Amino acid sequence: MEVDHLADERSKAQFDVEEMKIVWAGSRHAFQVSDRIARLVASDPAFQKDHRARLGRKELFKNTLRKAAYAWKRINELRLTEEEASRLRFFVDEPAFTDLHWGMFVPAIKGQGTEEQQQKWLPLAHKMQIIGCYAQTELGHGSNVQGLETTATFDPQTDEFIIHSPTLTSSKWWPGGLGKVATHGVIYARLLTNGQEHGVHGFIVQIRSLDDHLPLPGITVGDIGIKFGSGAYNTMDNGVLRFDQVRIPRNQMLMRVSQVTREGKVVQSDVPRQLVYGTMVFVRKTIVGDASNALSRAVCIATRYSAVRRQFGSQKGGLETQVIDYKTQQNRLFPLLASAYAFRVVGEWMEWLYTDVTQRLKANDFSTLPEVHACTAGLKSLTTSATADGIEECRKLCGGHGYLHSSGLPELFAVYVPACTYEGDNIVLLLQVARFLMKTVSQLGSGKKAVGTTAYMGRVEQLMQCRCDVQNAEDWLKPSIVMEAFEARATRMSVACARNLSKFGNQEEGFLELSADLVEVAVAHCQLIVVSKFIEKLQQDIPGKGVKNQLENLCSVYALNILHKHLGDFLSTGCITPMQASLANDQLRSLYSQVRPNAVALVDAFNYTDHFLSSILGRYDGNVYPKLYEDAWKDPLNDSIVPDGFHEYVQPILKQQLRNAKL
Amino acid sequence: MEVDHLADERSKAQFDVEEMKIVWAGSRHAFQVSDRIARLVASDPAFQKDHRARLGRKELFKNTLRKAAYAWKRINELRLTEEEASRLRFFVDEPAFTDLHWGMFVPAIKGQGTEEQQQKWLPLAHKMQIIGCYAQTELGHGSNVQGLETTATFDPQTDEFIIHSPTLTSSKWWPGGLGKVATHGVIYARLLTNGQEHGVHGFIVQIRSLDDHLPLPGITVGDIGIKFGSGAYNTMDNGVLRFDQVRIPRNQMLMRVSQVTREGKVVQSDVPRQLVYGTMVFVRKTIVGDASNALSRAVCIATRYSAVRRQFGSQKGGLETQVIDYKTQQNRLFPLLASAYAFRVVGEWMEWLYTDVTQRLKANDFSTLPEVHACTAGLKSLTTSATADGIEECRKLCGGHGYLHSSGLPELFAVYVPACTYEGDNIVLLLQVARFLMKTVSQLGSGKKAVGTTAYMGRVEQLMQCRCDVQNAEDWLKPSIVMEAFEARATRMSVACARNLSKFGNQEEGFLELSADLVEVAVAHCQLIVVSKFIEKLQQDIPGKGVKNQLENLCSVYALNILHKHLGDFLSTGCITPMQASLANDQLRSLYSQVRPNAVALVDAFNYTDHFLSSILGRYDGNVYPKLYEDAWKDPLNDSIVPDGFHEYVQPILKQQLRNAKL
Ligand SMILES: Cc1cc2nc3c(=O)[nH]c(=O)nc-3n(C[C@H](O)[C@H](O)[C@H](O)COP(=O)(O)OP(=O)(O)OC[C@H]3O[C@@H](n4cnc5c(N)ncnc54)[C@H](O)[C@@H]3O)c2cc1C
Ligand SMILES: Cc1cc2nc3c(=O)[nH]c(=O)nc-3n(C[C@H](O)[C@H](O)[C@H](O)COP(=O)(O)OP(=O)(O)OC[C@H]3O[C@@H](n4cnc5c(N)ncnc54)[C@H](O)[C@@H]3O)c2cc1C
Repeated sequence: MEVDHLADERSKAQFDVEEMKIVWAGSRHAFQVSDRIARLVASDPAFQKDHRARLGRKELFKNTLRKAAYAWKRINELRLTEEEASRLRFFVDEPAFTDLHWGMFVPAIKGQGTEEQQQKWLPLAHKMQIIGCYAQTELGHGSNVQGLETTATFDPQTDEFIIHSPTLTSSKWWPGGLGKVATHGVIYARLLTNGQEHGVHGFIVQIRSLDDHLPLPGITVGDIGIKFGSGAYNTMDNGVLRFDQVRIPRNQMLMRVSQVTREGKVVQSDVPRQLVYGTMVFVRKTIVGDASNALSRAVCIATRYSAVRRQFGSQKGGLETQVIDYKTQQNRLFPLLASAYAFRVVGEWMEWLYTDVTQRLKANDFSTLPEVHACTAGLKSLTTSATADGIEECRKLCGGHGYLHSSGLPELFAVYVPACTYEGDNIVLLLQVARFLMKTVSQLGSGKKAVGTTAYMGRVEQLMQCRCDVQNAEDWLKPSIVMEAFEARATRMSVACARNLSKFGNQEEGFLELSADLVEVAVAHCQLIVVSKFIEKLQQDIPGKGVKNQLENLCSVYALNILHKHLGDFLSTGCITPMQASLANDQLRSLYSQVRPNAVALVDAFNYTDHFLSSILGRYDGNVYPKLYEDAWKDPLNDSIVPDGFHEYVQPILKQQLRNAKL
Repeated sequence: MEVDHLADERSKAQFDVEEMKIVWAGSRHAFQVSDRIARLVASDPAFQKDHRARLGRKELFKNTLRKAAYAWKRINELRLTEEEASRLRFFVDEPAFTDLHWGMFVPAIKGQGTEEQQQKWLPLAHKMQIIGCYAQTELGHGSNVQGLETTATFDPQTDEFIIHSPTLTSSKWWPGGLGKVATHGVIYARLLTNGQEHGVHGFIVQIRSLDDHLPLPGITVGDIGIKFGSGAYNTMDNGVLRFDQVRIPRNQMLMRVSQVTREGKVVQSDVPRQLVYGTMVFVRKTIVGDASNALSRAVCIATRYSAVRRQFGSQKGGLETQVIDYKTQQNRLFPLLASAYAFRVVGEWMEWLYTDVTQRLKANDFSTLPEVHACTAGLKSLTTSATADGIEECRKLCGGHGYLHSSGLPELFAVYVPACTYEGDNIVLLLQVARFLMKTVSQLGSGKKAVGTTAYMGRVEQLMQCRCDVQNAEDWLKPSIVMEAFEARATRMSVACARNLSKFGNQEEGFLELSADLVEVAVAHCQLIVVSKFIEKLQQDIPGKGVKNQLENLCSVYALNILHKHLGDFLSTGCITPMQASLANDQLRSLYSQVRPNAVALVDAFNYTDHFLSSILGRYDGNVYPKLYEDAWKDPLNDSIVPDGFHEYVQPILKQQLRNAKL
């Protein structure tokens, strides 16, 4: 009989968990799809989680190929919708070439290809008759895309482009799926025609033969080697690629925006450049969604284990204290729980933003683009950094046992952290946000209206002067008070930075010199966005007993924890007083007590299967210790009682016979 | 010919690097030993670094056994001193059972064994005729040592103890070296005699036969499985151990402090209990030293690579900007460089503290013990947390390439992080510090003098009122001003917390409720210790051109960065004004400019060989790109051009033949 060791925790919950699951999933429909596909994956032996850390790179990779093929087979057999297929890949939970094929290659062609190109390439891609990757980064250039060195030289004689890697540092480096699998890639290269440079453009290049999978002539390609962690992202074949004068037909340059004519002239099409931003918003909303997925997963493990783990405080031989009852544990864990929910809400809002921007682009309305670009860049940076740190904090919250691979947390960390780097290094992105904010501030007097997530800056005069109204701890529960404090902080920091910048003769020099401050301004602005979107969400009707109340608590925890962590910002700009800061702290403590009885139910609402979590510490039933014990014996080192190497290397030490030993 | 790509950087240094190497090593002697042994290890083919991430667990472990045996052989052949032997193990750079044997087993016997026991066991251990481990933690109890469940019941009939594991959770779990190698262990168990409990004590227990290495009757032992990362700490056989009524002679209880007589009576020896604290201080000073080792290693890699890496800012086709020139990069990197030096200085001071406390213990002077205990607990926590976070920040500072295993940073992180957990969970330790601080505050009026690192609290009245004297940015370079600000902050936070505590009827309840605040008080106190020890060091004469000046800059960077990061503390307690905070920031920026030309030389001063660093990004000669490229091809996935699994799993997708494929 299976015992639920966490049943007691679950019975304490003060809200309807089933309804919360729907909030988490986004809609009843989304919940049902997710739930059904999760079970499907978990119950299929072919998708069983391997002990990835025990596999060598080749075995690991081969097994990923197997799972990817099997997933594609099932997707077709079951005629899954796009939504269902994507959930299936999510629950299979193993990075694979298919991620880049669907997530970058196909969108790049959709976003940058002409109608004709789309008609030619998309059906092939959709049936996976070709497999694509996205090859932008080179050994020498990542962040600075304009610095890419690969060249695409137009040869009017043959109506072809010659793709070439002129230097070692121009080798493509990092693209996922490239190393061993992709047959094609969208390759970014510097366009040269008639002896002139025309910036970086994308080209569809075939890399491998569709017959024998060998690299085409002039192409050198391989895997770049092992990455962080065991298992983790090593199931992916991030690749290196060099071109030696490889020729492709002219119509394989992605020409939606710029075109090269038969004569080698570069002409702009009537499709506006800005259209490509649509893809960027799409990718970033996915990344923010992934952040809430990864963080919630770590929080789920740490929360359940913190309720199982007991340490100290036993009274007269009774049970010891559950570590989740320690305020220090709560002070580290609950803000992460709150962040997981907050990022979920923001991700949902970004879905709306994406739809909105797509419609505007169709109507040739580009007015919101700069703001949308800054906002999504900032949210990508904020949520991925917080998630990476949060996963590691969850691991530490599990004490020693969190360090075991079987806790699930080390691999989750290793597989997640590159999100801070790819699709824009987080610091580079924040600098872009800061640049936009400085521009917004500089135009405040000019009559140009601050829009979207910067609209609050329109109230700059009020926000520069307002005084926080908090008199007692509960005042910090009022959304209007929290909003004003965050808006005042962001505004005052922006204005102060703008003033400091204006002291420099050369704006660009000033920007470089003050960039560390500017990053902090950007962070303040982005945190405000998260808080405001969470608060907006709570102004809607949310059904289910106690559900809204829980979300309100989490929203307050999120905001007040940030206020505490960035107290210097709030105090130095005079947004709040030290006394008010101390009241915020009191309120935060009391919120922790309100979250406490609901904590396990709040992570149950993520609806993760044990298969997906793949964590002994995070098991739904809390049956941690017997399972840890059982699992230990499966380690290869336990195959024999006396370890391989004992006779050669340990015995001679013990017997003092090392002198003659061959080592 | 080998080119030094960093030669230009090195020529910019404004100080004598050779002299700085001696400061870093601690003394000319220490430098020479270290330098000699580092070269010895680096040049010996038997110590070549394997590509650990490519080895399966068994191969990996066997290879560690080989290296450990070879190291021991060389130590004996070369008749190395203890200092030299320990440096050798350090530079071999692979966690092994020998770490626990020398680092925990031997010290435990020295610290807790009687003269007689030491005479019996130490010679065996010193010759490695037995190999020992340290088995305290159990599946169910780590932090709470008093909660351990293993029992040692005295049987007066046979004059033996019966060691037993009564529950699953009483299984020993985590001890390094236990899993596969140790023949003996110091086992902690709950002493039972005459039906009475007498708390937890240490026992020397033989685990495996010295003949065939099989576990002795009644003993179940094995490895607990794979841990964080690839390679990393997986070279260690952390173990699980269960006892089924295992009998050991009475004289194998470590009896320096408490003894069990032939009749089963527990008597205290005339050796004071406090003596065991000596070992604790010893272990913690080692951990702080290790923190500076690990952090400096990461910083060395990130600094060199940041000088090699160029991105953006090329003017008219010239070279792009080295990323180390970006202020955001400096703002992340230089405080870590400063921390590495700061922790080094603190580690050195702890050597003195250890000598001091040992002498006092010998003279039955226990007056400084509580303070020393708190101070070393706090420094262990502070330095290990900062180092773990710092390594990961260094990885991120390297952009995408930092994510490659060959950057050296992922493995360094994975191998280092448990330092935050073992030898006392960092939060649990900070709570102990806070407890001590609250006691100190409560006794301030009573005439009891605050000693050692809390001496500043004796000036509580002054520190509660003082006003910071800073008028312009350079004032922040004055040690007295920095010290006062840090002392005032720690004092005011302590006093405020003590006041809040006193509002609770039950002190213990108050302590639990306010524990998150208390942790912050402890951190403030520990940061003050680091700053003050660094400042004290600079009051000494330090030879070498420019050396002292560099250290002064780093000391200021360390202090002002903390001030900025914890600005809320300083402002809310009124220690400084917002204007002064802003001046501190200005000063910090200008310090970065002063550190910049010296950065590469400052990491050269760590004197790490390329062998030890094992990082392509951190290579001394900066020849990063060709070596990354070369290394990629060695990955097993590149053994064949078409990957294993292609024909079964990829071909059928491309050929639309998946339906019939067997997966
Ligand atoms: C797991 C993984 C998967 C990837 N997948 C792909 C893929 O499929 N396709 C693809 O094309 N690429 C891929 N990449 C590459 C990725 O997009 C780049 O690594 C990323 O853009 C960062 O660029 P970089 O590595 O050049 O970092 P760098 O720019 O070299 O960053 C190094 C440091 O310099 C700093 N820095 C750089 N510029 C500035 C500046 N202007 N101001 C201040 N600081 C600065 C950064 O903050 C960072 O600290 C992948 C990378 C990883 C790790
Ligand atoms: C790599 C590694 C090597 C090790 N080697 C050895 C060895 O050689 N020998 C050996 O005996 N042991 C060893 N250990 C075990 C190690 O000493 C313990 O893991 C450590 O003491 C932490 O205890 P724990 O795991 O029980 O954590 P827990 O105490 O269970 O911690 C879980 C959480 O509870 C919190 N918590 C616990 N108590 C309190 C409290 N009173 N107040 C507030 N919060 C609290 C912690 O902060 C943490 O967040 C090793 C561990 C590791 C990871």
